[in-house]
Amino acid sequence: MPYINLRIAGELSREQKQKIVAEFTDTMVRIACKPAEYVVVAIDEKPEEDWGWGGKLLDEL
Amino acid sequence: MPYINLRIAGELSREQKQKIVAEFTDTMVRIACKPAEYVVVAIDEKPEEDWGWGGKLLDEL
Amino acid sequence: MPYINLRIAGELSREQKQKIVAEFTDTMVRIACKPAEYVVVAIDEKPEEDWGWGGKLLDEL
Amino acid sequence: MPYINLRIAGELSREQKQKIVAEFTDTMVRIACKPAEYVVVAIDEKPEEDWGWGGKLLDEL
Amino acid sequence: MPYINLRIAGELSREQKQKIVAEFTDTMVRIACKPAEYVVVAIDEKPEEDWGWGGKLLDEL
Amino acid sequence: MPYINLRIAGELSREQKQKIVAEFTDTMVRIACKPAEYVVVAIDEKPEEDWGWGGKLLDEL
Repeated sequence: MPYINLRIAGELSREQKQKIVAEFTDTMVRIACKPAEYVVVAIDEKPEEDWGWGGKLLDEL
Repeated sequence: MPYINLRIAGELSREQKQKIVAEFTDTMVRIACKPAEYVVVAIDEKPEEDWGWGGKLLDEL
Repeated sequence: MPYINLRIAGELSREQKQKIVAEFTDTMVRIACKPAEYVVVAIDEKPEEDWGWGGKLLDEL
Repeated sequence: MPYINLRIAGELSREQKQKIVAEFTDTMVRIACKPAEYVVVAIDEKPEEDWGWGGKLLDEL
Repeated sequence: MPYINLRIAGELSREQKQKIVAEFTDTMVRIACKPAEYVVVAIDEKPEEDWGWGGKLLDEL
Repeated sequence: MPYINLRIAGELSREQKQKIVAEFTDTMVRIACKPAEYVVVAIDEKPEEDWGWGGKLLDEL
């Protein structure tokens, strides 16, 4: 039952999402010995304005 | 202080959200013995493209 | 693909966890029309000292 | 590596986000003794319809 | 209904948790104009071994 | 600023955590074009009793 939540600044193309899901799942199968059909991924694309780092919004850096 | 985060593929109607919040809260009151006014629910509706399962995006399955 | 994360102050017995998982899943099947085998629940029991409410720790209230 | 996720009902202005990120980061530096450049904040603005409290949607209260 | 989840490497004293909850709540009251009694904070102290940064575990850096 | 939260049933060895953090970060660098030093990973190992799937606790399946 691995559940992986990726939260990322900006947007991803559909092809990027496909590759990320495939690679994260493959890592879980090979390294954590989990069946692929147990691996759930949820992707949250968030604007840079909604991230802070070092006390500033990400789009100010 | 139960905090319940529901993340779901696709969209829910307002009526579905009302029933889900009512039922989750009722479960917390009856089973976990928490006062209803402590129960917070946050619902995240997410497109199928943002979910992976078994190495594929959910809308490919 | 509903993923439900319950975060709760204090501890639950195994029987309480079983009932909560059964009821949350049943709510998803009846109200959100999701197959039961898609519903994932993750329960986080957290000590009252790790919760704040109204500016105080929960165990001070 | 403090990661702070603020989930809030309604919307915040850009100026509010800047101040929140600045203050949360400052709290981490002063109280938790973490370097500012380790502090990550992610803000989720969510409509009132997606929150439940006491068994009702937030916009019914 | 602000819900704030702080995830931090290492441990905090009870006094640190009290101050963090008080300050985060105060920020929400002053900047986001939310009543203090709506502000929920959940603190997750996690060992450095459970954090990655830049491709390494935090305790290798 | 990718933040990746892996929640997994059971325990991982330190070596497994190292490899998972290294591979997730590498995926972010190659596919999402993010600098490695922006990638934060948080791993939550959770007992099977704290997971539900299909209406049952994971350790009943």
